[in-house]
Amino acid sequence: MNDLVDEFDAYRAKMNDRILKDNNKVLKRIFNLDTNSFAEGALDKKTKELLGLVASLVLRCDDCVKYHLESSYKSGFSKEQVVEALSIGTLVGGTIVIPHLRRAYEYWDAIEDKFGQNE
Amino acid sequence: MNDLVDEFDAYRAKMNDRILKDNNKVLKRIFNLDTNSFAEGALDKKTKELLGLVASLVLRCDDCVKYHLESSYKSGFSKEQVVEALSIGTLVGGTIVIPHLRRAYEYWDAIEDKFGQNE
Amino acid sequence: MNDLVDEFDAYRAKMNDRILKDNNKVLKRIFNLDTNSFAEGALDKKTKELLGLVASLVLRCDDCVKYHLESSYKSGFSKEQVVEALSIGTLVGGTIVIPHLRRAYEYWDAIEDKFGQNE
Amino acid sequence: MNDLVDEFDAYRAKMNDRILKDNNKVLKRIFNLDTNSFAEGALDKKTKELLGLVASLVLRCDDCVKYHLESSYKSGFSKEQVVEALSIGTLVGGTIVIPHLRRAYEYWDAIEDKFGQNE
Amino acid sequence: MNDLVDEFDAYRAKMNDRILKDNNKVLKRIFNLDTNSFAEGALDKKTKELLGLVASLVLRCDDCVKYHLESSYKSGFSKEQVVEALSIGTLVGGTIVIPHLRRAYEYWDAIEDKFGQNE
Amino acid sequence: MNDLVDEFDAYRAKMNDRILKDNNKVLKRIFNLDTNSFAEGALDKKTKELLGLVASLVLRCDDCVKYHLESSYKSGFSKEQVVEALSIGTLVGGTIVIPHLRRAYEYWDAIEDKFGQNE
Repeated sequence: MNDLVDEFDAYRAKMNDRILKDNNKVLKRIFNLDTNSFAEGALDKKTKELLGLVASLVLRCDDCVKYHLESSYKSGFSKEQVVEALSIGTLVGGTIVIPHLRRAYEYWDAIEDKFGQNE
Repeated sequence: MNDLVDEFDAYRAKMNDRILKDNNKVLKRIFNLDTNSFAEGALDKKTKELLGLVASLVLRCDDCVKYHLESSYKSGFSKEQVVEALSIGTLVGGTIVIPHLRRAYEYWDAIEDKFGQNE
Repeated sequence: MNDLVDEFDAYRAKMNDRILKDNNKVLKRIFNLDTNSFAEGALDKKTKELLGLVASLVLRCDDCVKYHLESSYKSGFSKEQVVEALSIGTLVGGTIVIPHLRRAYEYWDAIEDKFGQNE
Repeated sequence: MNDLVDEFDAYRAKMNDRILKDNNKVLKRIFNLDTNSFAEGALDKKTKELLGLVASLVLRCDDCVKYHLESSYKSGFSKEQVVEALSIGTLVGGTIVIPHLRRAYEYWDAIEDKFGQNE
Repeated sequence: MNDLVDEFDAYRAKMNDRILKDNNKVLKRIFNLDTNSFAEGALDKKTKELLGLVASLVLRCDDCVKYHLESSYKSGFSKEQVVEALSIGTLVGGTIVIPHLRRAYEYWDAIEDKFGQNE
Repeated sequence: MNDLVDEFDAYRAKMNDRILKDNNKVLKRIFNLDTNSFAEGALDKKTKELLGLVASLVLRCDDCVKYHLESSYKSGFSKEQVVEALSIGTLVGGTIVIPHLRRAYEYWDAIEDKFGQNE
């Protein structure tokens, strides 16, 4: 099941490289901003991860959800906390979000299989 | 071609179980409401299935479309009726909906392959 | 409160005329298709009105909701039936739909104020 | 400028009452769930407010943004913190979000005019 | 009718100033990028205006449509050309786009009233 | 890597046939309009391709992006031009668009692998 995580990370890294080496200035700056906006600030980095996760879920972007699940995990959130965030996204975004919730659960399981459980 | 239906149903059932046994109260209630809102009421259950189908199509959620195609089929709608509903969704939602319409047609064919045609 | 209905209908009629007299072939045909797709067919016209209403609500288009509330009313749906359709849209589309639901209720009240209640 | 806040709150309260007294079970439960999902849990209530705010912004729902700006204010977030959350929403949701960001700024100003600044 | 244009421009300018003087780095850079991405490049500036217009229409953002109508006008596009672009947006985005199309027509008329017709 | 292009084209052609032979009048006319709206007119066909591409990207429809990448390629756009169009879509639509941008880059590479580079 680990493959889910490795596959996603590998494709993401390969294509990001592909895009960035292309040297389109606007795209490079958007990628840059992405890093800046999630950095420590008036809000702590950890809280920001969760904001990214919920935004991704309500916009129903599976790849974005995967990315933010991984960084939420690495920030130390427990599964229970992540699920509460996902439940808010599901309520706000509606039952149309449920198929993405299923894949989010599957991906979180893959993360825990690979790296162990956060307490 | 039957696999399309079995695969979808199996993954959906497995992950729904996974989510529900997790015991997040908000998610459980949303799943519950889903059942309630499509029950017989001032509108009959059959009409409601079609409302769910069109909502799913305009929101471009393939899995939701599949689910409601199956329950529309089981409610006894003919293909012609289902296609009329899909055509409204395509007009309201625009040509951006067409790729989802293709997959809806493919899935309906898989349903008929498996269970026979509704008259 | 009647003004809500009259105002909306007047603006809609004025601007539709404006667009149609402009003679862009694609736009004219889209307007035409709109009429065709909601006509009696394998599905009855009345059911189709409700499909249009729910599609409009989940896509969060206030003007489209108003239009379909009016035609749902004229098709003879009772308030209870319309509200059941709206409740499906709110569940599928999520709490983000609630502000549009508020305006839908207000508009339905304006319709009943003007034309009386459907039984 | 205070009117912005009072007007919004009054309309929201009036129409919510209107909807709830209508006694549609699905809608009542959705309203209920809304309260439950933002309650203290594995995540604190304060963090959840911010999740609601960002979800509302990326889904471009002005009324939802207003509501969550008010509750974020009442939870004690400083303007700088709220703006960081809004900036994440704007990056994730794109420049299409900017008109909603303008109205969010205007509304936050109205809140501070009325209740004073959070430190 | 000119007021439509003046009102929109004034509110937009006032709130953009408000946002920019707030000095949130991410927001300032997004505003900056907005200018850069529509500058002359491998594609000419004029074509890019139209891309912005159609993107705004299919995403159903009235304020964004207004802004890009104005800059499309200033780039020298004729009404017929602008309407062709809008018709593509309406087809791709579906009839749900029509209320926004109405307001786009109204705004274009206001622009022509104020500045005269492009030939 | 060519497979990406062939696979997509084959599935698209097969299912379009499937839909069209079904003879639903509304769907057939929508397919027809799709051809008409992208024909030479007040705007040249080439510009229209790019409008279709950007609309597809901001609406985050992978299949639509693939289709318009192919026709943009066949219209003679260079990669640099296409990427500028994609960068506008990414800015307008936000970072949520990035996963679709990755797949767009991959598909463009597959097109160039198959047909050679546009100069």
